[in-house]
Amino acid sequence: MRTIGVREGEREPTLIEKPRPDPSDGEALVRTLRVGVDGTDHEVIAGGHGGTPAGDDHLVLGHEAVGQVVDSNGTALSEGDVVVPTVRRPPNGGNEYFEHGEADMAPEGSYHERGIVGAHGFMAEYFTSPAEDLVRIPASQADLGFLIEPISISEKAFELAETSRSSFTWEPESALVLGNGSLGLLTLAMLDRDDRYERLYCLGRRDRPDPTIDIMEDLGATYVDSRKTPVDRMPEVYEHVDFVYEATGYARHPFQSVQALAPNGVAALLGVPGPGEFEVDAGAFHSEMVLHNKAMVGSVNSGRRHFEAASRSLLELPRRFLDDLVTGVYDVSEFERAFDDGDTVIKTAVEFGTYEER
Amino acid sequence: MRTIGVREGEREPTLIEKPRPDPSDGEALVRTLRVGVDGTDHEVIAGGHGGTPAGDDHLVLGHEAVGQVVDSNGTALSEGDVVVPTVRRPPNGGNEYFEHGEADMAPEGSYHERGIVGAHGFMAEYFTSPAEDLVRIPASQADLGFLIEPISISEKAFELAETSRSSFTWEPESALVLGNGSLGLLTLAMLDRDDRYERLYCLGRRDRPDPTIDIMEDLGATYVDSRKTPVDRMPEVYEHVDFVYEATGYARHPFQSVQALAPNGVAALLGVPGPGEFEVDAGAFHSEMVLHNKAMVGSVNSGRRHFEAASRSLLELPRRFLDDLVTGVYDVSEFERAFDDGDTVIKTAVEFGTYEER
Repeated sequence: MRTIGVREGEREPTLIEKPRPDPSDGEALVRTLRVGVDGTDHEVIAGGHGGTPAGDDHLVLGHEAVGQVVDSNGTALSEGDVVVPTVRRPPNGGNEYFEHGEADMAPEGSYHERGIVGAHGFMAEYFTSPAEDLVRIPASQADLGFLIEPISISEKAFELAETSRSSFTWEPESALVLGNGSLGLLTLAMLDRDDRYERLYCLGRRDRPDPTIDIMEDLGATYVDSRKTPVDRMPEVYEHVDFVYEATGYARHPFQSVQALAPNGVAALLGVPGPGEFEVDAGAFHSEMVLHNKAMVGSVNSGRRHFEAASRSLLELPRRFLDDLVTGVYDVSEFERAFDDGDTVIKTAVEFGTYEER
Repeated sequence: MRTIGVREGEREPTLIEKPRPDPSDGEALVRTLRVGVDGTDHEVIAGGHGGTPAGDDHLVLGHEAVGQVVDSNGTALSEGDVVVPTVRRPPNGGNEYFEHGEADMAPEGSYHERGIVGAHGFMAEYFTSPAEDLVRIPASQADLGFLIEPISISEKAFELAETSRSSFTWEPESALVLGNGSLGLLTLAMLDRDDRYERLYCLGRRDRPDPTIDIMEDLGATYVDSRKTPVDRMPEVYEHVDFVYEATGYARHPFQSVQALAPNGVAALLGVPGPGEFEVDAGAFHSEMVLHNKAMVGSVNSGRRHFEAASRSLLELPRRFLDDLVTGVYDVSEFERAFDDGDTVIKTAVEFGTYEER
């Protein structure tokens, strides 16, 4: 079967022919429909993130998949079920985090991530997975189900942020999303569906005309150009915001965000920066945190319940938004186009097959 | 009646004679038993914190009080009840935070704090307070009830920290308290009563012999000398810890704490630093927060339910610990001694009266 992977020492995705896998006990065999591409894939390809599975000379890419079960292999799934796989797998017989069903809370080194580190991904005509790591979704999501993994990332971040504010009356009205990539825009659309948020902002560094700015404005959000309005100037130019969602990995953002937050607000951090030392007004950061009961939560990966919530959220996102967000779905025969990341590209996927009604 | 206050322009506490107050509607009249002294009082005296009430030339000190109701004035309280007052009061007719019973979440400028900013404190033979701001405690706590306010500060911080970790399985085993002042030691003793914590650490910068180190070690905690082991070296010298409680206001601590935290850990910040810019490894801070799902919560002040929890906690603290902690209780006639803050002083209080059984 055809797979798309990156060979050790290379820096671009390649078509790699591999045998179709056989499901082990407890695993189902899934025929892949579509697999999304995101920034992590580009990092893996650039060699900054990935880890080839032991004993192999390549890593099959892809962690944002949707597929259809073709062999349930005695598991609770049924042939024909449309499923989305979670990403983390136990490395050597598992550990307490996997036992709790909370692989997303496992520390570095205690998990593999399919398509990212230590385990092959889903960019293949078929893949196998333990049935417990396959989340069944409605057949109507066979086309856009590859968005469920990124949406689940925000579901988890929202959960951590919300619970951190759950011991008192917290009634957020405004939110700022840092980053106008596909994850930032998906998050903005999710916040737009939340009746509590009356005012939304999204930070980018693009000139108009730009398709991401169009999407923000279609959602009723205000575009904040970081070149004119750095995050810590938000209060001066716009307002203090109740919730900040950081999806760029720019290391100044956590400090600036605390200044942008309203009293009792929370910043969720998701982007991962490289090392970087610089001067910060640490006193102002610290005292703002304390005197206004602010919170900051880091969040990585997501668990099964976040995938389930993401499937429900995807049902609520406006079709027009999704059409604008997904700028290209390419057949595996022209997969290279899905890895193009020019300024007009927002979200792409590789198509391995199409949904078949049973 | 005698009160202890600080006059505008002066930098030391003085005896000030004032008329005994009359309770307004909804207020009770309380005969003061004891009032604790803490770092905030010293800041108020030094002029760095306080705000004299409008129209007055002095501020009566004291926010850690215990007293006995002498005139319930038609409220739900009874004469003879032992009570502890909360600290924040609405400045001008109140606001939503006070209406929710969450004055501790009110932003700066939207509250007065008795004995600290905008409203007279409790260092007076009598004080009045709305009955809803008086928390009834057992008569057995008439002697040490002045510790309930500081304990309540930690109850709130614990609540914020715990709820921030409540969406997943969090089983903390180790905690590090930054600061060996009375609040740090009270917090250490509270953590020691929590069966989950098997290993406790407390940071200070003192040479032995030192009474605070003795208290830590009596509680079974490990003394960490910050001159030898800065917080970010904790993992190397001891271990990563699940919970950090910051009570010093040293602006490097938030950054160092994130490195000291175990995966999925949380740091509660309570100390308030002055301004201070310096270089930090912001990339390492940010990526540790994200990749290990860490959290940081700021916490200030406390609400009625935290006072109620604090009264229950105080009942559980070992008498020996409390005896060691409270290094002096001084009659109002020698109140100056309660403001001495030498190295052998841990916690002091001024005594205005004694409990009377009714």
